[in-house]
Amino acid sequence: MKEYGYLWELAIILATTKLFGLITKKIKMPQVVGALLAGLVFGPAFLGSILSHFTVGGVNLAQFTLVESDFIRMLAELGVIVLMFNAGLGTDINELKKCGKASFVIALLGVVVPLVVGGGFSYLFFEAGYIKSLPGTSLFLQAVFIGVILTATSVSITVETLQEMGKLKTVSGNAILGAAIIDDILEIVALTLITSVGGKGGHGGSVGLVLLKIVLFFVFVVVFGFIASKLFARWLDRDQKVMHRHVVGAFVLCLVMSFMAEFCFGVADITGAFFAGVILSLTGRSHYIASKFDVIGYLFLSPIFFASIGMQVDGKQLASMGVGVLVFAVLLTIIAILTKVVGCGVGAKLCGYNNYRSLRIGVGMISRGEVALIVANKGLEASLMPKELVAPIIVVVLITTIVTPIILKPVFMRTGPNAVDPIVESRLLTAYEKRIKNKIKIR
Amino acid sequence: MKEYGYLWELAIILATTKLFGLITKKIKMPQVVGALLAGLVFGPAFLGSILSHFTVGGVNLAQFTLVESDFIRMLAELGVIVLMFNAGLGTDINELKKCGKASFVIALLGVVVPLVVGGGFSYLFFEAGYIKSLPGTSLFLQAVFIGVILTATSVSITVETLQEMGKLKTVSGNAILGAAIIDDILEIVALTLITSVGGKGGHGGSVGLVLLKIVLFFVFVVVFGFIASKLFARWLDRDQKVMHRHVVGAFVLCLVMSFMAEFCFGVADITGAFFAGVILSLTGRSHYIASKFDVIGYLFLSPIFFASIGMQVDGKQLASMGVGVLVFAVLLTIIAILTKVVGCGVGAKLCGYNNYRSLRIGVGMISRGEVALIVANKGLEASLMPKELVAPIIVVVLITTIVTPIILKPVFMRTGPNAVDPIVESRLLTAYEKRIKNKIKIR
Repeated sequence: MKEYGYLWELAIILATTKLFGLITKKIKMPQVVGALLAGLVFGPAFLGSILSHFTVGGVNLAQFTLVESDFIRMLAELGVIVLMFNAGLGTDINELKKCGKASFVIALLGVVVPLVVGGGFSYLFFEAGYIKSLPGTSLFLQAVFIGVILTATSVSITVETLQEMGKLKTVSGNAILGAAIIDDILEIVALTLITSVGGKGGHGGSVGLVLLKIVLFFVFVVVFGFIASKLFARWLDRDQKVMHRHVVGAFVLCLVMSFMAEFCFGVADITGAFFAGVILSLTGRSHYIASKFDVIGYLFLSPIFFASIGMQVDGKQLASMGVGVLVFAVLLTIIAILTKVVGCGVGAKLCGYNNYRSLRIGVGMISRGEVALIVANKGLEASLMPKELVAPIIVVVLITTIVTPIILKPVFMRTGPNAVDPIVESRLLTAYEKRIKNKIKIR
Repeated sequence: MKEYGYLWELAIILATTKLFGLITKKIKMPQVVGALLAGLVFGPAFLGSILSHFTVGGVNLAQFTLVESDFIRMLAELGVIVLMFNAGLGTDINELKKCGKASFVIALLGVVVPLVVGGGFSYLFFEAGYIKSLPGTSLFLQAVFIGVILTATSVSITVETLQEMGKLKTVSGNAILGAAIIDDILEIVALTLITSVGGKGGHGGSVGLVLLKIVLFFVFVVVFGFIASKLFARWLDRDQKVMHRHVVGAFVLCLVMSFMAEFCFGVADITGAFFAGVILSLTGRSHYIASKFDVIGYLFLSPIFFASIGMQVDGKQLASMGVGVLVFAVLLTIIAILTKVVGCGVGAKLCGYNNYRSLRIGVGMISRGEVALIVANKGLEASLMPKELVAPIIVVVLITTIVTPIILKPVFMRTGPNAVDPIVESRLLTAYEKRIKNKIKIR
């Protein structure tokens, strides 16, 4: 395709992700699922692979399908940065302080159990030679990385399902919301650790130096964040209302922190973007800013990101996919579901929730979603994950996402003496849950 | 710079264009001027050229300045497409029908006079060898192209100045607004003609075929536009309110028409984008859609476009700039100012406006601005303009833009028997002028 071919590609990405998203929405699935499928169907996994056999007038038809060019890849990366920045903007530190201990324990176990079990399982699979690991990267790190992917939680589907059922403002709902935020932060820490230690390019030398850099990064975030949020708040106050300059300034902060995370500390750029969002959320006036990034997200960058994930699955590769990968995908999905239910459930139980509530909380945390994809994408870039595992990861994300609302309904509808879940009345919660809901913004 | 270097570059572009834009706004200049200067100052023209002499710890400091990478170039191009799409969205066909003949005559003469004089002057300059023309492209076409650049009008500065003076809703103000829209369309037609006939890649073979394709393009725009606007209006009606899907759909239409213009008709992509906007404006509900593209514009794509223009000026090239180019820049600026004043002024006079009003209208049309830059950019891509002429074009845009408000004030403030300009009362005009004002959206 000529130099203007990217116009066509962008048009196809936007049109198909929206169309598929609307279809999945119609059948009560999140639109992210549709966007992913669009990338699969119109990319090299399906249509690209079929149309490559057809040539009309000397023009191979595959060039009209989706292919991941450098331009698309970079826009997708920028899309992740904006997604994570928006997630950071939606964080409510005060609410976090309230939910406190219980949410932390639930989130921690919900991270540790999938990490250990998923990592261990992957290690065995790699070792047995069922899946070819990447040469040049330690087998152990690659296995741990799969574990890290499994730790991600995306509660937007749970939030939407519970809201429809009128069960969001319950004790269980509240715990799920709190745990999800902490889960995000733990996930970011885990990702930072593993990409710094094992990532391509060797940001540091020894593990000691890498750990020091990470500690320095978090010191930087706290110190710089404190100053930056004060200055930003003062700037906002001076101009009375939020103006274009503040939104542009917020974007600059996001980009600079993303860049510095990589350049100065060897930490993933999305970590920098996330904390840039958290810093701005401290000003208490991040809502308007988030709404603008929302537009850039849904209208431009997010569809490109989700489609680009699907586009990384190759049809030829799929056709020649070994039984190993297939079995791996199935087992990994089962592990993904069970480890979250057990991990978060036990965490809840430890904090004094009764059995029903613990089960509810565990089920509410099953779905992976965009965060798992973001992490997997990072792993590909950093040579921490073989490309043939993209398909299994997509399977995990799709199935955990599809399964969550299906299991949630019976678990929450069941009534009985132990099943009663008092409604928590909280105005704060409403604002809070809105923010959580807004974390993924493909409407 | 490593692969995440683009984050830094984007941050610098956004920060500096906004900062410079706010400074120029402070001294009553449009923010576009600031954005252009930011690209000049932080690009290879100035800072890049200076810092290239400094190396710290093996790192050349020039890599922290702005350089036009492929990524930036493509984003800039997308930025122009969005700008032109938004300009199309702001077109009011009904209002155009009213202003009618007078605006058309003013616009036509305002296009023909700069085209002929500017083109003729450039031809003489090229022929005399004062400026090296591009090898492989006809001298005549290159000269005509400079003329085409001079035909552009950007009235946003005039609109803002007149509004501040309370003189926008006058007979002269009304004529300026109408003529500006028609000028845009004539400019697009001229650009389409010249890039199709002389553009790189040879879209068609003979001139006849090229002209046929252009005619077919306009037939396509009218037929497809009629159907598409009806369908889009029905879609909007069905969903009651404008939703994300409609905005995404609008973007898809813009991208598809941009692509088809190039791919099927050999017409510039921005022409397709502009008419996609016009088509959507016919639904009468393009305001909400335009507001969303506004966000993508000011927060992301437009600053990149304006900065990238400035970034195309090279310091070394500037230092070795021949006297020829320098003289050319000065003379071209004078020609740019005089030909618009005379062309539009005579057009107004022919339509029965008195001398004062004719002068006011002529002066109001002086400023070039983003359209001239868009056209120049297209010329570089299509090998219709030598790169060393970017600097003179920027000079023309900067000076005509700076000079317009300065001349407008005395011309409009002067009172006397012939100078009285009755205030036109029109509610329609208010909505209309808002749309025009919104054409450039760097606030």
